[in-house]
Amino acid sequence: MTLNRTPVHVNDAVAELMKRVKPLGTETVSYNDSYGRVLAQDLTATSDVPLFTKSAMDGFAINSAHSTGASGDSRVAFKVVEEVPAGSSSDYVLKDNEAFRIMTGAEIPESADTVVMFEQTKETDEGFTIRREFKAGENIAQKGEECKVGDVIVEKGTMINPGTVATLATFGYSEVEVFRQPVVGVLSTGTELLEVEDELERGKIRNSNTPMVLGQLKRMGIEGKHYKLETDDFDTLHTRIKSMLGEVDVIITTGGVSVGDYDLLPKIYDELGAEVLFNKVAMRPGSVTTVSALGDKLLFGLSGNPSACYSGFELFARPALNLMQEAALPFAPIVDAILDEDHPKPNPFSRFIRAELFFKEGKIYARPSGFNKSNAVTSIARSNGVIVLPGGTRGFVKGDAVKVMMTDVTTGADNFGVE
Amino acid sequence: MTLNRTPVHVNDAVAELMKRVKPLGTETVSYNDSYGRVLAQDLTATSDVPLFTKSAMDGFAINSAHSTGASGDSRVAFKVVEEVPAGSSSDYVLKDNEAFRIMTGAEIPESADTVVMFEQTKETDEGFTIRREFKAGENIAQKGEECKVGDVIVEKGTMINPGTVATLATFGYSEVEVFRQPVVGVLSTGTELLEVEDELERGKIRNSNTPMVLGQLKRMGIEGKHYKLETDDFDTLHTRIKSMLGEVDVIITTGGVSVGDYDLLPKIYDELGAEVLFNKVAMRPGSVTTVSALGDKLLFGLSGNPSACYSGFELFARPALNLMQEAALPFAPIVDAILDEDHPKPNPFSRFIRAELFFKEGKIYARPSGFNKSNAVTSIARSNGVIVLPGGTRGFVKGDAVKVMMTDVTTGADNFGVE
Repeated sequence: MTLNRTPVHVNDAVAELMKRVKPLGTETVSYNDSYGRVLAQDLTATSDVPLFTKSAMDGFAINSAHSTGASGDSRVAFKVVEEVPAGSSSDYVLKDNEAFRIMTGAEIPESADTVVMFEQTKETDEGFTIRREFKAGENIAQKGEECKVGDVIVEKGTMINPGTVATLATFGYSEVEVFRQPVVGVLSTGTELLEVEDELERGKIRNSNTPMVLGQLKRMGIEGKHYKLETDDFDTLHTRIKSMLGEVDVIITTGGVSVGDYDLLPKIYDELGAEVLFNKVAMRPGSVTTVSALGDKLLFGLSGNPSACYSGFELFARPALNLMQEAALPFAPIVDAILDEDHPKPNPFSRFIRAELFFKEGKIYARPSGFNKSNAVTSIARSNGVIVLPGGTRGFVKGDAVKVMMTDVTTGADNFGVE
Repeated sequence: MTLNRTPVHVNDAVAELMKRVKPLGTETVSYNDSYGRVLAQDLTATSDVPLFTKSAMDGFAINSAHSTGASGDSRVAFKVVEEVPAGSSSDYVLKDNEAFRIMTGAEIPESADTVVMFEQTKETDEGFTIRREFKAGENIAQKGEECKVGDVIVEKGTMINPGTVATLATFGYSEVEVFRQPVVGVLSTGTELLEVEDELERGKIRNSNTPMVLGQLKRMGIEGKHYKLETDDFDTLHTRIKSMLGEVDVIITTGGVSVGDYDLLPKIYDELGAEVLFNKVAMRPGSVTTVSALGDKLLFGLSGNPSACYSGFELFARPALNLMQEAALPFAPIVDAILDEDHPKPNPFSRFIRAELFFKEGKIYARPSGFNKSNAVTSIARSNGVIVLPGGTRGFVKGDAVKVMMTDVTTGADNFGVE
C-alpha cells in the first residue's frame, strides 16, 4: 500500500470533515441532566411570562385614580385593608383611598393598577401618605410583557447553559429532547509508551495523550471511553480497532499516523475500508493528522506528539463532536489578541501554538506557553488557548496583533476588573 | 431588628468578600479525577524531558562526520546496519558510513549524532545516499531540552486543565494534591414557588433559580447540594439554614433578601449571629444581594429575581468559590466588546446585563439577550456573558465599546475563522 499524502490547507481539511459529520439522533433527558447538551427541540414558552400582572416592588397597590392631586404640600392618605404576600392574590375590591400592602412577585388585585414603593410613602397609624400622583402601571410587571405563550425562547441547536436550564424549569420542561452525545473511544498507540504508574525505563516515556484527550472531552462535557495502551503490532491493533468500532461512534487514536515503519494506523484504516478524508495538513504541528470515515463513524488519527495531539483535537475533533450533536455554533471562538512574546520563526504553513491567554484592561494577551516544539508536553500544561498564525507570515514580535482560539475561560483573571 | 442598608460599590463588595474567604485545605486525588481542580502543590519535573536524546523524525541516524563532502554532484552512501523503533535503543557502534534506521521518539544511539529524514535520502539496495552535509543535532531532541528534573512546570494555585493532566501523567503523578472544593448547598425560598413538575396556579411561578445555580456551579466543576424549596416561614427556614450549616461550607439562597415583610433571611442570619459583609450593592439588578459570614462559612443571599440571581452568582459566588480553592485566577475575564444593540437607559449605578456574546472576524460582539428587567428569566436563556456598564454612564448605542464578562466559551462560533 502506498500513501498518497498531499497536504491540504487546514480550512479545507476542517470543511471536508464537517461535511462528513452524520448527526446521531436524539434522546430525552431530565432538565437536571441537560446542562451542556444541545437542544433538539425549540424551547417555546408554555405560558405567558409573567403569567399574571404582578408587583415588581415591595410596597402598596392602589388605584391610580385615588392619587389624583397628591403633592408635597397636600399629601394624600391611604388606609391599608389587606396584605398580599408573594404567592397570594386578593379579590377584594378597593374603595376610595384604600390600599393593599403588597410584596414583590405578588399578583396585583384587579381593583389596583399601580404600586407605590415603601420608600415613596410616609407611614401613618392606618396606612401611609404619598406626595405625588401615580400613573397606572408604575412598579408593575404586566402579564406577558416578557413573552407570550408559544414564543420560541431558545432555538433547537443551542447548547444548554445554566440560564437555559432555568428557562426549562420556568416553563415546566421536566424533560427535554436533546441530541445524543457521541460515544468516543480514546486509544494511544506506541511501543515506547508506559502507563503513568510505571517507572521510566530506557527509550520509553509515559503516555500523556490518553488522559489529555479524555480531559479535552470532559471540557466539552463528554465522558470518553478509555482504552488500554497498545503496542505497535499490526494484528493486535487491527483487532482492537475492529472491536472498538462495535462500541463507539468515534475513535480517537494518538500516534501511529506518521511515515515511520511502525505507523500502522493508515494501513489498518485501509484494511478496514475506511475512506481517508485527509492525511496531511499544511500546518505545524500535527501535519500528519489523519481523519477517516467508515460508514457513519469517524476515525481521528492524531499525532503522538503531545502538542500536535492537543491542537489536532481542538482543531478537528472538537467542532466535529459538537456538530454530531447538531450544535449551531460548533467552533471555538477565535478572537484578536496581543502577542506577549517574540515569535521570530517564519510560518510557511499555518501554525497553532499552545498559549497562555491572560486578560488586562479589556485586552487579551497571548504568551506561547513554554517550549514550542511539537513534542513539548510542558508547553500545554498551562495552556488555555491556541495562537493561530496564518501560513506565509514572517516572524512576529511582542506587541503584534494575532488571532487566538479560546479553549476555555475557567482560569480567568486575577482581578475583578470592573470600572 | 432594623436593617442598616448602605449601598456599597460593587468593587468594594467583591473586595470585602474576597478578604473574608477562608481556604478549605487540601486533599489527594487521582490524576484521572484532577481535571478542573486547583493544584495544591507545584507540579515539578520528576525527570528531564526528553529523558534521553531522541529522534524527532522518521529517518536514519548517522554520525555527522560521515556526511562530510556530500553534495548533489557527489552523494555520500550509507549502509543501514540496524533498526531502532520507538521504545528501543541500540548499543551498536557505527563504523564509517553506517546508519541506523530510526523512528520518531526512539533513543539516538551513542555513536550517532544527527538524523537524516527519509525525505532527504535516495534509497539504495543497502541503504541510502544523501546530497548534503549534516551538522550534529539535526532532527534530534536533546535530553533535557524541554525541562530539567526539578523544574517547576505549573505553579500551585493553577486550575488543572487537559494539558496539565497530560503533564501529571508525563511525570508519573498518579496522584496529586489539590485544594478541597467547597460543598455548596442551594436553597430557594418563596411561598410563590412551584416545582418544575407542578401545574401553574394563580399567583405562583415555577422555581428556576435552584436548577440555574446548580448549573452555574456545574460550569465551575462543582456538584452543588440541592435542598428542597422552602416557604417564607421563619421557623422552618431558620431550622433548615441551621441544619445546612452542619452539612455545607457555603449556603446559596435565592429570594428572601429584599425589604418585603416575608424577606426573612436577613433576620435569620442576624439570629444565627452571622456577620453581614454587605446587604446593599450599588448595582442593577441585584442591589439587595446580601453576603454574610458565620465562622468559616459564607452565606450568599442572592435575589429571587432570576436575572439578578444569575449575575449575583457570577459576580460574587464564582470568584469566592474559586478562591476557597486558592485559585490564583479566581475571576472571570472581562474583555472589550462591541455593543450590538442600543441600550438607551442611563446607568446611575453599575449595570450588569445578561448578554449573548458572538464572535466575528476576531471581534467580540455583545447583544443584551432578550428582555432586560431583573425578573426576566428569558433573558438568561441564551446568555454566555454579562455586559458591564459602569455607574454614571449615559445610555449606549449600537457600535459602542463596552466591557463584557465571559462566563463560558462552550457555545463558540459558527465558523472555523482561521485565515
